[in-house]
Amino acid sequence: MYIGIDLGGTNIAAGIVNSDGEILNIESIPTKSERSSDEIIDDMILLVEKLIEESDFKKDQFKSIGVGIPGIADANTGNVVICVNLGWENISLKQPMEKVLNLPVFIGNDATVAGVAEFGRGKNDYKNGVFLTLGTGVGSGVIIDSKVFNGSHGIGTEIGHMVVGENFYDCNCGRNGCLETFASATALIKYTQKLLKEGRMSILSEDMKIQNLDARMIFEAAKDGDQLALESVNRLIKYLAIGISNLINIFDPEIFVLGGGVSKVGDFLLDKLKLEVESMKSFPKIDSGIIEIAKLKNDAGIIGAAMLGKISL
Amino acid sequence: MYIGIDLGGTNIAAGIVNSDGEILNIESIPTKSERSSDEIIDDMILLVEKLIEESDFKKDQFKSIGVGIPGIADANTGNVVICVNLGWENISLKQPMEKVLNLPVFIGNDATVAGVAEFGRGKNDYKNGVFLTLGTGVGSGVIIDSKVFNGSHGIGTEIGHMVVGENFYDCNCGRNGCLETFASATALIKYTQKLLKEGRMSILSEDMKIQNLDARMIFEAAKDGDQLALESVNRLIKYLAIGISNLINIFDPEIFVLGGGVSKVGDFLLDKLKLEVESMKSFPKIDSGIIEIAKLKNDAGIIGAAMLGKISL
Repeated sequence: MYIGIDLGGTNIAAGIVNSDGEILNIESIPTKSERSSDEIIDDMILLVEKLIEESDFKKDQFKSIGVGIPGIADANTGNVVICVNLGWENISLKQPMEKVLNLPVFIGNDATVAGVAEFGRGKNDYKNGVFLTLGTGVGSGVIIDSKVFNGSHGIGTEIGHMVVGENFYDCNCGRNGCLETFASATALIKYTQKLLKEGRMSILSEDMKIQNLDARMIFEAAKDGDQLALESVNRLIKYLAIGISNLINIFDPEIFVLGGGVSKVGDFLLDKLKLEVESMKSFPKIDSGIIEIAKLKNDAGIIGAAMLGKISL
Repeated sequence: MYIGIDLGGTNIAAGIVNSDGEILNIESIPTKSERSSDEIIDDMILLVEKLIEESDFKKDQFKSIGVGIPGIADANTGNVVICVNLGWENISLKQPMEKVLNLPVFIGNDATVAGVAEFGRGKNDYKNGVFLTLGTGVGSGVIIDSKVFNGSHGIGTEIGHMVVGENFYDCNCGRNGCLETFASATALIKYTQKLLKEGRMSILSEDMKIQNLDARMIFEAAKDGDQLALESVNRLIKYLAIGISNLINIFDPEIFVLGGGVSKVGDFLLDKLKLEVESMKSFPKIDSGIIEIAKLKNDAGIIGAAMLGKISL
């Protein structure tokens, strides 16, 4: 048995996961992110103890604990390097948890662990894969040779911050043209609002809608043939395709998996995206990775965090 | 002892290399690239046999042969996938050489093997490194965990074809905005010619010079304070910095090494480049890889090809 913890800005969810990557039991508590890191880590420890106590398994049947964090993790030291949402910087996470729980603890970025879950639930279906979450930002996880790829300083695979062009607004990171300013839900909304403010006609034009616009509304309008919404969606797809084509020329994976809110639109996104990527290939005669939509949805965080132990031990 | 072969469009150079990555003897013949692949492979075999015979070593003292090719290599099958300069496509290279020479043969892209040589001559000084050759195009080699990273279909680390912006001319690969259309010697020349054709004043303005412009002349003019040449050089540095910043967020290596003709300008390029990269960091508080100019120059091809065996066996 493995324990996986999905540390989010709103909730901490933890689950018992078997070696097939199936969740047997889940417990969840609010993060209350305004608290100190010590208090939050203590709560995670209590949550794990509760899960183990209330389960049908003995303590020695558990092999490891994995934690997915919404920030940059140093997998070697087990420290959280930076976690903006929680206000954490250089926080020791592995060490205090191991001390109390007496089990090996592994940590990883949340998109990375979701990738681990999607790429075969730790069963090594794919050796090389790139996972992209298209949500508020663009997160990513990369598996090379069936192992999590973290880079030398923990900032490897921050693919959302790959510059792919020039954009009308700067990224939170200070640069201009990052993939996440083109291919996230936020990017889609910002560009659509820009077009609407220019006075373009659209079924999204009503004032109330402009303020409360979300990605789903834009995709629905595009599906209904709204030209402005379509232009906005096509722009997202174009730059996502540039990003994926770049990654084909850099990582050359067997598979790309797309998760996050934007991916929920499914085939409407996927079909156009595949055509764009195909048209952009630098080496059209050579096979490149397949592109799929994530299957595990919200459970991927817990499953992948749990599987960190399975693929590392 | 290891044998390394640098298969180029003009010459085939082969050398005996010891386990410290030092070349003991070199032989070289013209490639005559208009010939069939069979004839060229036969010549490589003869070259290896000659090297071994004329050396002080016995056949059984040689452990392997490595070949760096100017194209896309499938390291798993030992086949050349595509090699535009030689007109090769899906050519079996490892198999016919092993059959005759009775030694393990390893193949790799020429920039990749040069990277292997630069990253500690196979001595594992650096575990994670990115090597970029800035020449006619932009080639690249990536080392992850002290091993050559090739991707799943052999097109991994074609970093020259990462799109980093929009450019005034298309790349040979058909896309627009590839790194190599900004950061190669060819790119520097094309952009300078464009500015000169617009009638801008420069010490490079004489008609004769416009036709025969090379990268060295542009760098020299920039060093002399020529505004047009400086603008051109600064543009190359800006996009090279975007490319390197992207790679920090993707591979997060310990070291970047720059080779190829453009790198020969040395500190004039390196000092400006480091400042640009520093200003572009998405995570300024986190360490990122150092940037250096290649040390081995022309020998890197033979040394790295030889070392392919050392790091693979």
